[in-house]
Amino acid sequence: MHKVALIGAGRIGRIHARNAALSDRISLAGVVDPVATAADALAGEWGVPVMSLDEAMDDPSIAGVIIASSTDTHLDYSVRAARAGKAIFCEKPIDQDLERARSGAADLADARMLLAFNRRFDPNFQALKARLDSGEVGVLESVQITSNDPSPPPPSYVAVSGGLFKDMAIHDFDMARWLLGEEPVEVYAAGSCLVDPEIGKLGDVDTARTVLKTASGRLCVISNSRRSGFGYDQRIEAYASGGMLRADNVLESTVQVWNEAGASADRFQNFFLDRYAEAYRREMAHFADILDGAKPSVGYADGVAALALAEAAAESVQRGSAVKL
Amino acid sequence: MHKVALIGAGRIGRIHARNAALSDRISLAGVVDPVATAADALAGEWGVPVMSLDEAMDDPSIAGVIIASSTDTHLDYSVRAARAGKAIFCEKPIDQDLERARSGAADLADARMLLAFNRRFDPNFQALKARLDSGEVGVLESVQITSNDPSPPPPSYVAVSGGLFKDMAIHDFDMARWLLGEEPVEVYAAGSCLVDPEIGKLGDVDTARTVLKTASGRLCVISNSRRSGFGYDQRIEAYASGGMLRADNVLESTVQVWNEAGASADRFQNFFLDRYAEAYRREMAHFADILDGAKPSVGYADGVAALALAEAAAESVQRGSAVKL
Amino acid sequence: MHKVALIGAGRIGRIHARNAALSDRISLAGVVDPVATAADALAGEWGVPVMSLDEAMDDPSIAGVIIASSTDTHLDYSVRAARAGKAIFCEKPIDQDLERARSGAADLADARMLLAFNRRFDPNFQALKARLDSGEVGVLESVQITSNDPSPPPPSYVAVSGGLFKDMAIHDFDMARWLLGEEPVEVYAAGSCLVDPEIGKLGDVDTARTVLKTASGRLCVISNSRRSGFGYDQRIEAYASGGMLRADNVLESTVQVWNEAGASADRFQNFFLDRYAEAYRREMAHFADILDGAKPSVGYADGVAALALAEAAAESVQRGSAVKL
Amino acid sequence: MHKVALIGAGRIGRIHARNAALSDRISLAGVVDPVATAADALAGEWGVPVMSLDEAMDDPSIAGVIIASSTDTHLDYSVRAARAGKAIFCEKPIDQDLERARSGAADLADARMLLAFNRRFDPNFQALKARLDSGEVGVLESVQITSNDPSPPPPSYVAVSGGLFKDMAIHDFDMARWLLGEEPVEVYAAGSCLVDPEIGKLGDVDTARTVLKTASGRLCVISNSRRSGFGYDQRIEAYASGGMLRADNVLESTVQVWNEAGASADRFQNFFLDRYAEAYRREMAHFADILDGAKPSVGYADGVAALALAEAAAESVQRGSAVKL
Repeated sequence: MHKVALIGAGRIGRIHARNAALSDRISLAGVVDPVATAADALAGEWGVPVMSLDEAMDDPSIAGVIIASSTDTHLDYSVRAARAGKAIFCEKPIDQDLERARSGAADLADARMLLAFNRRFDPNFQALKARLDSGEVGVLESVQITSNDPSPPPPSYVAVSGGLFKDMAIHDFDMARWLLGEEPVEVYAAGSCLVDPEIGKLGDVDTARTVLKTASGRLCVISNSRRSGFGYDQRIEAYASGGMLRADNVLESTVQVWNEAGASADRFQNFFLDRYAEAYRREMAHFADILDGAKPSVGYADGVAALALAEAAAESVQRGSAVKL
Repeated sequence: MHKVALIGAGRIGRIHARNAALSDRISLAGVVDPVATAADALAGEWGVPVMSLDEAMDDPSIAGVIIASSTDTHLDYSVRAARAGKAIFCEKPIDQDLERARSGAADLADARMLLAFNRRFDPNFQALKARLDSGEVGVLESVQITSNDPSPPPPSYVAVSGGLFKDMAIHDFDMARWLLGEEPVEVYAAGSCLVDPEIGKLGDVDTARTVLKTASGRLCVISNSRRSGFGYDQRIEAYASGGMLRADNVLESTVQVWNEAGASADRFQNFFLDRYAEAYRREMAHFADILDGAKPSVGYADGVAALALAEAAAESVQRGSAVKL
Repeated sequence: MHKVALIGAGRIGRIHARNAALSDRISLAGVVDPVATAADALAGEWGVPVMSLDEAMDDPSIAGVIIASSTDTHLDYSVRAARAGKAIFCEKPIDQDLERARSGAADLADARMLLAFNRRFDPNFQALKARLDSGEVGVLESVQITSNDPSPPPPSYVAVSGGLFKDMAIHDFDMARWLLGEEPVEVYAAGSCLVDPEIGKLGDVDTARTVLKTASGRLCVISNSRRSGFGYDQRIEAYASGGMLRADNVLESTVQVWNEAGASADRFQNFFLDRYAEAYRREMAHFADILDGAKPSVGYADGVAALALAEAAAESVQRGSAVKL
Repeated sequence: MHKVALIGAGRIGRIHARNAALSDRISLAGVVDPVATAADALAGEWGVPVMSLDEAMDDPSIAGVIIASSTDTHLDYSVRAARAGKAIFCEKPIDQDLERARSGAADLADARMLLAFNRRFDPNFQALKARLDSGEVGVLESVQITSNDPSPPPPSYVAVSGGLFKDMAIHDFDMARWLLGEEPVEVYAAGSCLVDPEIGKLGDVDTARTVLKTASGRLCVISNSRRSGFGYDQRIEAYASGGMLRADNVLESTVQVWNEAGASADRFQNFFLDRYAEAYRREMAHFADILDGAKPSVGYADGVAALALAEAAAESVQRGSAVKL
């Protein structure tokens, strides 16, 4: 059992705490959070102590840290944990600023660091990736990633989030890189504010289409909206020389109703906490693998690369032309 | 071009008139109907003369007749047409009375007679049958036929229709024989009156489940309701040793709507005139084949056999036990 | 935390052990199995002691027992546990013999006994039941239960299993009762041996269709095969006055492949351990509710009633007529 | 009955000849084609005379012309027919050159001219459009048009076709305008040659993604490939404030096969002659409406506007930036 400390007792921290605590390979050793009530509540739930950041970082018996604190701490905490020789499970994004993110390279490029792009661990997307890699549909040519949220965040969140590309589409940039098998060399994005005018006043867009192109000419479109009107919409289509693979939305149940209006399926799973529950579990299992010595399947360099695409997309919206990487 | 007379200018007669008139191998030569206004209207629509029954039957230039008149005339008109050497397109059922139907054997067993079980000509069911016959799913073991109407007929119709088994399920008995590839030797049916109490007062059922068994043990269930609550429901599942083939309902369009309630498909095609429009066209094309000399793919013997199953099912409901054939 | 002993360390016992051990309301107190190696292995896995049956039954600190031993012990162990005042989680069937099962009434009719018909706890079937009960599709009229196994058990198992109706269809009889909302008063079954002739030599069938009828005329068809040719097939359709609800098979993922042959979905979940993994978890959660004082949602009387239907179906196959209950 | 002459007896001309001949409102008056064998064959099939172009244009009894000849003749023949006072059914594109196309405005802007963008007449897309216009999903925000051919044309065709954007995507530009309800003001396209290197040598692309933006910020992505690897792929998704409408591919039948690999649907309808057979019929019916006096639902201005988008897309690929319109 590897002892692991959790830093950050917010919504996503609580998910990771649960998965760590229920793992038979990880032992949750403590919870760190500057908000004492949050730390107390979560630590109490799992019967573990509240710790200070120093205690977590300095205790040599703690083999790894889960960094689920606010985005502006991700890089510093990761560097500190790396210097302390710990395995790192760090939430996305690695930082909101690309230059700053790159500054961590000396410490993090070779660290045992899992950057928590949870969608790579979704069973459906993993199944799609495995079949793509198997060659059953031939050589990949293009990818369509559809990623729409059920409803927009409050403008106050948007103001500090880094914007649609760094906050929301960052996942899709990572999925694109994972699936394309080549680095994008050109990014074009068109964006509009169609959902909430307040978002536009903050200088952000709430609806976007991004086109990525790799050196060999593979194309990827990312479709984003802050509000779909029909729930959480997470789909992938991968077009190859011999066919297409698609992963569809996940439904709450297999129940259909047939009535005079036709046949209706059940709702899509509500939002990411439901849709990616199994992904979070598999992500934690991979962290256990890393603690056992495995190489991270997604790490620091991936976090930087996704952030670079997000910055390029935002720049493209401003410039009205493709941005070369 | 084969000259053909239509007998019966009702709803189904009008369908056949149109398909005959639009065929490039059949020429509609005239319309027969005791109701002059009906005959006039339909004949006028296609620019052909109204005829008497005698004229239609006695004119040697008329190579075939389409019998779409009331059920009690089907057998007599078929016999008369057979004796006149004409090819026969006769609506189902061949008669409401099994013994009477059997009495036509001398004239009809070898006649060039198409008994109009339209579902055999539906493109979806034909595709299912072709794949079943190809052996791609192995050896057939059992069949599920689901056949529900959108809404019940008026009790006045039920009173003269011969009842659910002879009127409605007769199609399903024919489909069962077509698909099973063996004659049923045992029939059990359970029936209830759940839709319209008036139907029950007439001694009929409006909801039924029938189980057929062949000599080799193949099983078939037929599910019927006079009112589905969700439109016209016409499905088949054929279970075989290496898999299952199913033919589903046909939708009005491929359009789906996705909203907060989930994903909904379009309505099912309304009723038999829509659902089987192409089947009626293919049926008429097969009649042209017969006029050209082809052997009917479904004829007198099939009409009698389906009627025998319908009588056995009705008897089974009364007796509460399986009826052997 | 309620202390619970597990009796029977076989395949299904291991599932229940895991779910009990991972529950935060139940504490697994020990494992009973006459096969010492099986008991040792499972007890070791969860760090609990091996117990004798007497120890489990006589220890007053043990509040409940999970009976997952061989079918012939279910009734005796349940009676003994009831007399010891324990809550009972008993695998299906309650017994292979209806008269014997009924003899337990004095002890078990009012016991805190969960009869483990796992399908009642499947999220999809629960969603269907909830929507049916909500009245959104009107009044129930008929039910179609499709329940096909991926491949037949070895004949040696069939010989002692009680046969298709008591062993396999027993689940479907329970589902039928649960959904119909009325007791069946008439049972007809047709059966054949189409899959494995060895099963026929043992006097059993491997393919069956059963028709149930309730006093008010509701109809239910149960379709069973020991081998589907396409995996584990578990579907329900509930037809009501205003529409139909269906629960479909569960797929391994949402991934489809589109190629020249058309669009193909992923495989169905393999067999009951996968398909009903969540049902087993919810079943154990309900046992925790019972330990907390809740009334069992499914218990002794349901076990007897399903067995009575299974016996009636087997008798109907022999007699060729419906059996009244 | 309106007398109509067909100009161009090639593949698409034969479709229109058939639909005109079978219409009960249009009478096919003759066939014009410089290739005498083609003209003879088609005229013979429908029992109508071969005509010269002058005869067709100068005969005042001919109320309309169907222009299905080579693209470079579309504009001249349309202008000549307009000056002769005839109704015009003209195949797409109106011309390969935008400036030339615009030069026809004086004659064609107010002509009774149907520009044959057949997809507007597809029943599925019409159903989608009607539901979008009904407001049931709220206000449109973005559109996804997926349009992939089953296999690439020969390079010899590509060389004279005007390229992917003017030849193939021209339909999609028209669909985009039809659905967006606003004119695009900005076009970005990325293109690659991934399917056939010969196409690349001709300076064309075979794989493209185009992003359109309207003045109010509505976004549209068009996805094109000359070879899908899975048949003819024609789909639309329209995202609105209250949900999404999608029109899916059309299958050859409703038959599915279920086997160990999962559930597979039937193939997609092969190519445009099958997929749009009903659209061609409805298009001809609309031409009959125009001959009766109706205003064309799609005409000269639409042909010019789609061509302008195609030129802009091609220019965008060259420039790597969005092109303003």
